[in-house]
Amino acid sequence: MPDKVLIYSRFPKAMMVRIGERYELLDSKGQNFTEVFSTEQLSDVRALISAGGTALGAKAMDALPSLKAIVCYGTGYDGVDLKAATERGIAVGNSPAANAAAVADLAMTLMLAVTRRILPADAYVRSGDWAAAKPSPLMSPQQGMPARRFGVYGMGEIGRKIAVRAAAFETEVAYFSRSRHDVPYQYMPSLEALADWCNVLMVAVRAGRDTHHIIDAAMLRRLGPEGYLVNISRGSAVDEAALVAALADKTIAGAGLDVFETEPHAPDALTAFPNVVLTPHIGGHTLESHVAMQNCVMANLEAFFAGKPLAYPVT
Amino acid sequence: MPDKVLIYSRFPKAMMVRIGERYELLDSKGQNFTEVFSTEQLSDVRALISAGGTALGAKAMDALPSLKAIVCYGTGYDGVDLKAATERGIAVGNSPAANAAAVADLAMTLMLAVTRRILPADAYVRSGDWAAAKPSPLMSPQQGMPARRFGVYGMGEIGRKIAVRAAAFETEVAYFSRSRHDVPYQYMPSLEALADWCNVLMVAVRAGRDTHHIIDAAMLRRLGPEGYLVNISRGSAVDEAALVAALADKTIAGAGLDVFETEPHAPDALTAFPNVVLTPHIGGHTLESHVAMQNCVMANLEAFFAGKPLAYPVT
Repeated sequence: MPDKVLIYSRFPKAMMVRIGERYELLDSKGQNFTEVFSTEQLSDVRALISAGGTALGAKAMDALPSLKAIVCYGTGYDGVDLKAATERGIAVGNSPAANAAAVADLAMTLMLAVTRRILPADAYVRSGDWAAAKPSPLMSPQQGMPARRFGVYGMGEIGRKIAVRAAAFETEVAYFSRSRHDVPYQYMPSLEALADWCNVLMVAVRAGRDTHHIIDAAMLRRLGPEGYLVNISRGSAVDEAALVAALADKTIAGAGLDVFETEPHAPDALTAFPNVVLTPHIGGHTLESHVAMQNCVMANLEAFFAGKPLAYPVT
Repeated sequence: MPDKVLIYSRFPKAMMVRIGERYELLDSKGQNFTEVFSTEQLSDVRALISAGGTALGAKAMDALPSLKAIVCYGTGYDGVDLKAATERGIAVGNSPAANAAAVADLAMTLMLAVTRRILPADAYVRSGDWAAAKPSPLMSPQQGMPARRFGVYGMGEIGRKIAVRAAAFETEVAYFSRSRHDVPYQYMPSLEALADWCNVLMVAVRAGRDTHHIIDAAMLRRLGPEGYLVNISRGSAVDEAALVAALADKTIAGAGLDVFETEPHAPDALTAFPNVVLTPHIGGHTLESHVAMQNCVMANLEAFFAGKPLAYPVT
């Protein structure tokens, strides 16, 4: 009989097919699992798969008395109460770097799309306004990459890949992270210094309590009126209300966002702006990334059920 | 008295301010200049500024009996009848490479935007469909960059810069151009071989008679059902009717286009597709590029009126 694995978050079925071939999946499809499955069904669940960003605290853990492994599908594990897990002897694993290239690619896509005004440009062509030679203030020439100074916040796998890509566009790149890395980019002593210096701020920091709302009104003022914010990390890193205010009063020039504070909701005030590009948390959403993330999930489950330490433990 | 310069194409005024400070500009504002200016006014015009892609043949040259210099604002000069100019002893100059980085940046923007489906993704967020968890076939995971093979057609300044940028995205890059270059990318023996091999074809070739409609139905079939076409060169390089047909019957997966056969018109059949990203010929349209192109125009005019060879002659 295959081992049981609880699907804790909502995942498209296609993502779970491969894992379902090896394990018996208890899928609550985004519902509260304690409502969907009986106490008896849950009593011998030893492992679960979560989306990492989904809140998973002591209460959920206590509803699963046999739980010993939380396996996050993806890089993030910010929703998991690590202290509660440790107290209960529950191991936590993730899929480190599996989607880093895809996320970095999307970060560059958002940055280029918003700075080169791709949405208004495409609309200008499709509407016939171009053919009619109708003037458009949004189509006036903008600064190009040589005038952009790239600030990368966070120098993990994703941050590194963003920096490599940005440097190929003949721009200056600097970064801030908790510690200095052996990378060929200028290290800034603080996020404030980075925001003062750059006019494109790429948020690639790991989400957590210490980074909650770290991009706030004051930080956006430092980024300034020619500045663009790109966030492909977690919505919680940005004070969304402050961002909306900064876009409304032109404290900054624009934003590219793949993540939001309360997904899948993007505030109406945000979706009304022409100078933002918004994507529905698709950073890691490529076929290759899913295979790589599934590889990590499978390796973590395989190790766990064989009685070994997780292959990719969160440390 | 300042020297007279005819503005042959339609340019936004802002582009001409700097040149207008040094020369007396005769601007027909896109109208036929022989209708706007008298024979007498035109009799002593020795230089003109053209947009390069604008048709400029023997008839126009003969309406300007003193014409000895055609200065193209931008890299292209495909609209200029070089034979007719040579026969009349008229020098032709351009702005080589001045906008190469900006054009290469837009090529990457279009490629990323179309392959990562930025337009449908943004619409999915803005419409509220994401918040409503409404399924969207366009939002299913796609191949990412590791699965893309980049074919760059043309290895001039723009092609090189596209290749450098693409390589930073961890993709394989190959190219075809009339001659082999000292670049670290695989050289393909023909455009056909490149189209067979790649699934992203970036058209960065110089426009001319030999490249007219070189991307035709047969070439699009070689690119194939997972293939994307990006054109930032000239609309004439692509058989637009064949492209529309190839998009309609899914011979190729999508396209990113900054240039069209009959600008400023993009065919209705093209603007109806969801899997294309269209921009109104803004490749070189950044502030830095305009300054660089103006530098070339000024240098060409300066040299010409000083009785010297053009600073940036077309050879």
